[in-house]
Amino acid sequence: METKTISKLGGDGKMSSYTYDEYKRIVKEFHGSLAPGLLIGGFMVDLALKNLPGGQFFDAIAETKTCLPDAIQLLTPCTIGNGWLRVMNFSRFAITLYEKEKGEGVRVYIDTKKIEAWPEVRDWFFKVKPKKEQNYQLLLDQIADAGAGLCSMKKVRVRPELTGFHAHGSKIAICPSCGEAFKIKNGDKCPACSGENPYVD
Amino acid sequence: METKTISKLGGDGKMSSYTYDEYKRIVKEFHGSLAPGLLIGGFMVDLALKNLPGGQFFDAIAETKTCLPDAIQLLTPCTIGNGWLRVMNFSRFAITLYEKEKGEGVRVYIDTKKIEAWPEVRDWFFKVKPKKEQNYQLLLDQIADAGAGLCSMKKVRVRPELTGFHAHGSKIAICPSCGEAFKIKNGDKCPACSGENPYVD
Repeated sequence: METKTISKLGGDGKMSSYTYDEYKRIVKEFHGSLAPGLLIGGFMVDLALKNLPGGQFFDAIAETKTCLPDAIQLLTPCTIGNGWLRVMNFSRFAITLYEKEKGEGVRVYIDTKKIEAWPEVRDWFFKVKPKKEQNYQLLLDQIADAGAGLCSMKKVRVRPELTGFHAHGSKIAICPSCGEAFKIKNGDKCPACSGENPYVD
Repeated sequence: METKTISKLGGDGKMSSYTYDEYKRIVKEFHGSLAPGLLIGGFMVDLALKNLPGGQFFDAIAETKTCLPDAIQLLTPCTIGNGWLRVMNFSRFAITLYEKEKGEGVRVYIDTKKIEAWPEVRDWFFKVKPKKEQNYQLLLDQIADAGAGLCSMKKVRVRPELTGFHAHGSKIAICPSCGEAFKIKNGDKCPACSGENPYVD
């Protein structure tokens, strides 16, 4: 087995790389477990980073909320909290990194044809077998061997409304119901007091 | 000024703590900048962690997508990708940590009365002044001095549908339009091919 590395794009725009073992260590620290999807995600982000278009500032899309957002957050400057990572809950196992201004980018996705060559990965991905019947070590071994070989890549251009540098322009008001501050968009009350409150009491 | 610390809950259930300077270092590394909201967020998560109810497994809610999800991801085992952090986009500057099974938790929020004692924080929070008129250093100093004094806390119980250990039970199918795998919920095509596609080409 060749020794694979996983690229990282720093906040200073510089590329560095982790060994695969180092990547597994930070995955376990951040995510709590060596989730197969996050290990594959590392190779996906690596492939995208190696094929970035020109430009200085990049945004990211994760097309599922499972695992891939963490690969992006660990390996790029894009996080949920800084607004450069957008989770679009399509349940497609794909990521896109794109240049903020023009929207030109690269999308990496699991290729359902290529995955056929790796039976344990395929059965895990398509949920063919119950978890207890999966061979976890074989799954991890096949992921490590296959790397980005499970994926394909294409150039994309992101819709204009998802590009540019967005200011946080909304006005702030105090909700008359809960007394907390919120951004005025629709209605006088904050969204939680308008019916989306997640708390029973 | 007292020396403040920021608690961290590890994936092993053990509590540790950062000095405030250490916390600022990981904020800059992960988030890209010393965002005031994320510095306040550190004190908010710290306060929540010190007041957790009993239990072994915790989920988190961020009531805004700005900054606070990153404080939770840096200081707790809850991330977007592992599903233990839920972002509810209410634009309220509040977080909740709650025990997964019964939904009992603690909610920490910016208290719009307490914030009045810290004028530079107040003006930043309510966007009273344009960014260029803000005194960034004074803002950071007031945040460091105030700490959790900007916040209040209350016990909450989260709605039953947000509790429990959720299995990822959906069936996987191949989208006839894009040829990629997705979770079958509604319709035969994946959500992206059903109209939410973020790409122009």
